Amino acid sequence: MELQAVGVAVNEVWIVLAAVLVMFMQAGFALVEAGFTRAKNAGNIIMKNVMDFSVGSIVYWAFGFALAYGGSSLGGFVAYGNFFFNDNAQASTWFFQVVFAATAATIISGALAGRVKFKSYLIYTPFITGFIYPIVTHWVWGGGWLAELGFFDFAGSGVVHLLGGMAALAGVIVVGPRRGRFTEDGKPRPIPGHSVTLGALGVFILWFGWYGFNAGSTLAAVGQDIASPAVTTTLAAAAGSVGAMITAWVIIGKPDVGFTLNGALAGLVGITAGTASISFGLSIVTGLIAGVLMTLSVIALERLKIDDPVGAISVHGTAGLWGVVAVAVFSSDAAIGAQLIGATAIVAWAFGTSFLVFKVIDLTVGMRVSENEERAGLDRSEHGGEAYPEFVFQEQIAAPSDLDPVGSNGH
Amino acid sequence: MELQAVGVAVNEVWIVLAAVLVMFMQAGFALVEAGFTRAKNAGNIIMKNVMDFSVGSIVYWAFGFALAYGGSSLGGFVAYGNFFFNDNAQASTWFFQVVFAATAATIISGALAGRVKFKSYLIYTPFITGFIYPIVTHWVWGGGWLAELGFFDFAGSGVVHLLGGMAALAGVIVVGPRRGRFTEDGKPRPIPGHSVTLGALGVFILWFGWYGFNAGSTLAAVGQDIASPAVTTTLAAAAGSVGAMITAWVIIGKPDVGFTLNGALAGLVGITAGTASISFGLSIVTGLIAGVLMTLSVIALERLKIDDPVGAISVHGTAGLWGVVAVAVFSSDAAIGAQLIGATAIVAWAFGTSFLVFKVIDLTVGMRVSENEERAGLDRSEHGGEAYPEFVFQEQIAAPSDLDPVGSNGH
Amino acid sequence: MELQAVGVAVNEVWIVLAAVLVMFMQAGFALVEAGFTRAKNAGNIIMKNVMDFSVGSIVYWAFGFALAYGGSSLGGFVAYGNFFFNDNAQASTWFFQVVFAATAATIISGALAGRVKFKSYLIYTPFITGFIYPIVTHWVWGGGWLAELGFFDFAGSGVVHLLGGMAALAGVIVVGPRRGRFTEDGKPRPIPGHSVTLGALGVFILWFGWYGFNAGSTLAAVGQDIASPAVTTTLAAAAGSVGAMITAWVIIGKPDVGFTLNGALAGLVGITAGTASISFGLSIVTGLIAGVLMTLSVIALERLKIDDPVGAISVHGTAGLWGVVAVAVFSSDAAIGAQLIGATAIVAWAFGTSFLVFKVIDLTVGMRVSENEERAGLDRSEHGGEAYPEFVFQEQIAAPSDLDPVGSNGH
Repeated sequence: MELQAVGVAVNEVWIVLAAVLVMFMQAGFALVEAGFTRAKNAGNIIMKNVMDFSVGSIVYWAFGFALAYGGSSLGGFVAYGNFFFNDNAQASTWFFQVVFAATAATIISGALAGRVKFKSYLIYTPFITGFIYPIVTHWVWGGGWLAELGFFDFAGSGVVHLLGGMAALAGVIVVGPRRGRFTEDGKPRPIPGHSVTLGALGVFILWFGWYGFNAGSTLAAVGQDIASPAVTTTLAAAAGSVGAMITAWVIIGKPDVGFTLNGALAGLVGITAGTASISFGLSIVTGLIAGVLMTLSVIALERLKIDDPVGAISVHGTAGLWGVVAVAVFSSDAAIGAQLIGATAIVAWAFGTSFLVFKVIDLTVGMRVSENEERAGLDRSEHGGEAYPEFVFQEQIAAPSDLDPVGSNGH
Repeated sequence: MELQAVGVAVNEVWIVLAAVLVMFMQAGFALVEAGFTRAKNAGNIIMKNVMDFSVGSIVYWAFGFALAYGGSSLGGFVAYGNFFFNDNAQASTWFFQVVFAATAATIISGALAGRVKFKSYLIYTPFITGFIYPIVTHWVWGGGWLAELGFFDFAGSGVVHLLGGMAALAGVIVVGPRRGRFTEDGKPRPIPGHSVTLGALGVFILWFGWYGFNAGSTLAAVGQDIASPAVTTTLAAAAGSVGAMITAWVIIGKPDVGFTLNGALAGLVGITAGTASISFGLSIVTGLIAGVLMTLSVIALERLKIDDPVGAISVHGTAGLWGVVAVAVFSSDAAIGAQLIGATAIVAWAFGTSFLVFKVIDLTVGMRVSENEERAGLDRSEHGGEAYPEFVFQEQIAAPSDLDPVGSNGH
Repeated sequence: MELQAVGVAVNEVWIVLAAVLVMFMQAGFALVEAGFTRAKNAGNIIMKNVMDFSVGSIVYWAFGFALAYGGSSLGGFVAYGNFFFNDNAQASTWFFQVVFAATAATIISGALAGRVKFKSYLIYTPFITGFIYPIVTHWVWGGGWLAELGFFDFAGSGVVHLLGGMAALAGVIVVGPRRGRFTEDGKPRPIPGHSVTLGALGVFILWFGWYGFNAGSTLAAVGQDIASPAVTTTLAAAAGSVGAMITAWVIIGKPDVGFTLNGALAGLVGITAGTASISFGLSIVTGLIAGVLMTLSVIALERLKIDDPVGAISVHGTAGLWGVVAVAVFSSDAAIGAQLIGATAIVAWAFGTSFLVFKVIDLTVGMRVSENEERAGLDRSEHGGEAYPEFVFQEQIAAPSDLDPVGSNGH
């Protein structure tokens, strides 16, 4: 065996397995989004997640990768070349990138749960994996204008999560809240998720996969410190769940399960940009703040009557923004000026393009299902089935007067 | 450190972790099979899966490995030697092989869901892991007669999946359909699964573990391209789910969740033989065709009154056959003649031996539970418990007249 | 590339990925504990698991690691130094250790399911991750007095599992059984878990993660045999499930699902000390005995009116004790005398310190929730929510006379 070949093999083993861990985050997203929303839409959530990855992979193969890393750069804005990817020598690079693209895409599906036409969602998803996300990766990781400017985002607090969160916000604004989420006089009515255990499993899977996301972003093993990102990732997630739990405990009086679980995710999102830069101690502070900010953000969005069923905008958007800032505040690898410019550019691009696409779809095909379809649940109306056909649900045994007229009575 | 030792370590890390991923596919199979069948049989499905791996591992240790790779070959048909495996130097090889053997075995349990005596299933399972499967691996991967002939199957579309699918078909023919699956005048009545979320999680876990299955079949990392199989695996699975979704949409009018999820699995099965041979673009075509064929196969089997509750025969058998053929059609690593001979041999062997074993068990111990036991559910009748004792099921609140006489009323 | 750097990279890839697998065992524990207990406490179980890892990681960062491996040893009893861990060069070591500490902690939560104040649990958990567990690791793996004595425990049958099992026993004795678990005249009344599928998935996840636990305890890949521990782990788990299934079949007349699944875990716990020492054949015997002993232990504890809802004391304590002994019986790497001294020391330390902490908490804050809170379920009383708010439960449709007065009627 030759040394060069052995070294290459180590790097390939590392990147391929890290990418496999990131791929598994698709299962985590599917469970978080299904578990924290209603049973009548669980199959639809699953379908959106499967299609995010399936359609997304094919689109990313055809041109997403080309626009991000495809050879020559058009003015630092977009790459060009290597369409219909067919280079075995770059296979590990492509594999690691495609699972990131799928992550960005899948953030949106939870925020739009319970009220969007499946067909219309299918029209949107290629835009984010094939165009919106690749462009930003070119800016930051492909040697584009934000890289030139000194913007620093090691594993994607901004590139992936802030982007996904802002795309989700655009979608939520276009489609509006689920029926029954706010009363006619504007009071919020919580719609609890149908399975805390599935949601929690999703969070654990995401945490597990995040080690591939953060530590794998070294993009090699030889000569790299792949363990320190694993430590900061662990501590930030831990502190995020503690931070969110305490914040919720103070504000609503109980250590809420959903907030605590989302707190772990917020901690993970928050450390992602600085996972290789921030010290172990400060990674705890980073995660703690991420957990607090996420909780406050969820409460604030509810007051603004923005209905994000799973808290995706707060977990990925708010904590993602904090992550981009934190790496400048808590390490010397980034400067706050460049970080703020980068964050602004990502917010503007992700929100702007997504809003445009969602709006055009809404004005043509229509984004939203009918009132009857929403009441019946998307599993039945869009997919012709039910996720749990054998079980009895509260609505079936409740007296008619107990049911709210639009079927979103919080059960 | 010496170069040789470092190189060996890289290969060992790769194979051990790939095998660990394949082992986790057991969880995927358990969830797919439980989620897509009825709640009253969920514990029984779990038990069959646990025993496939548990009994299977011990049997494979005692003589399965010996018959596949145990030194001298008896005429290219069966190996002989190394019984009661005890060679630390070959530990990673054995570990990688045993998880494959367990995969072949576990394909069958879903197809036989809801009507088979646990005891009888326990009698069958050692035959596949200890004899039926090892013989075929010797033919193809152990230097046996099919290898001599030029039959090519990189990771097991034929050796594992076609074999498992045909064994499942034999079992289904011997035991017959679940009561109530077809009306007296022969019309099919669907029996939906009890948890789409668990089934979907199973599919994601299988997809995740499949990277170990396909990319790990390089059997080494140094000097190998381990990333390209990960890319073809991703794209074929993606295309498989899209292919099945569209086919179902056209035929039954809705983007069905179960077909779409099975489509991803079909894509995975379909690319497995050619994962290291087929180009990235053609892997999409391979997966797409696998998804279409699987869907048509499920519909065709239903017309033939073959009751395969989870679609295992179509996912593993039909798509497995396609995978064996596809590597000849879409790459130059295999010749169609040898592929067809190999496929025929595997079909004949797997179906023939399994049919014989199932038939002998049926004529002696009996394969099938009584009508009352089937109605009550195997969890209660075979294992003395229930999977979800706290939940209320439709049957409990339905008026007696709503219930079909054999308790398989599709809920 | 330099050879030294490549070799270091291989070791780092191995340890980081092994630790990631062990981290995922947190999800396994959460599901086993939630699935095998009642639905009304599922969110609370999740919260305890998340906090075990979250609070535990931060405490282990601040001083747990310092007391275990922090430089100078105080008389072989405790280490000292390296508080507020901040050494990037040791990051992989810390990461591998912290996930072990979290495993020890999380064993306890299942045993205390359904009756403990969340606040009081939060007070206990830092003691085990920050003090009780680190001290024992110093004794055995940090060059302390048990290492001097020749006590051998490769991956932690004693250090992790026996310790966790004894801490659980102390907790269970302090808090007492769940209301309704034993009738007034002392007859046991089983309280089945609410989801066999989730519990089974938890077992599969634990089995999957255990490869990191056992094979990763080589602490390096270069020059190590990392595959043989994977083989013994597989075979012992397989034999453990078979052993428990047969034992249960003989004693209670049915192949019980819960016992079988716990049998796999017992096999895993049993092989952990000797995973790198015991031959493949004897690993089957080790696992088989572990499965039998665990089953008998569960039955014995029930007769002693010790209420361990998920069997944690038997799975981790009894099988852990057997594991410590088995490595001396079945290999030459350990001597029975030293093993018994070590086991006694771990039992005395873990039980003694935990009993003290639980007792002090009980006498001050109180360990146990009120009768009403226990009846309502901890999700509602402690966390202000429900795990499955949309589903109908048996209690809701049962006639009042069917309900036992304390709400633990076995459904």
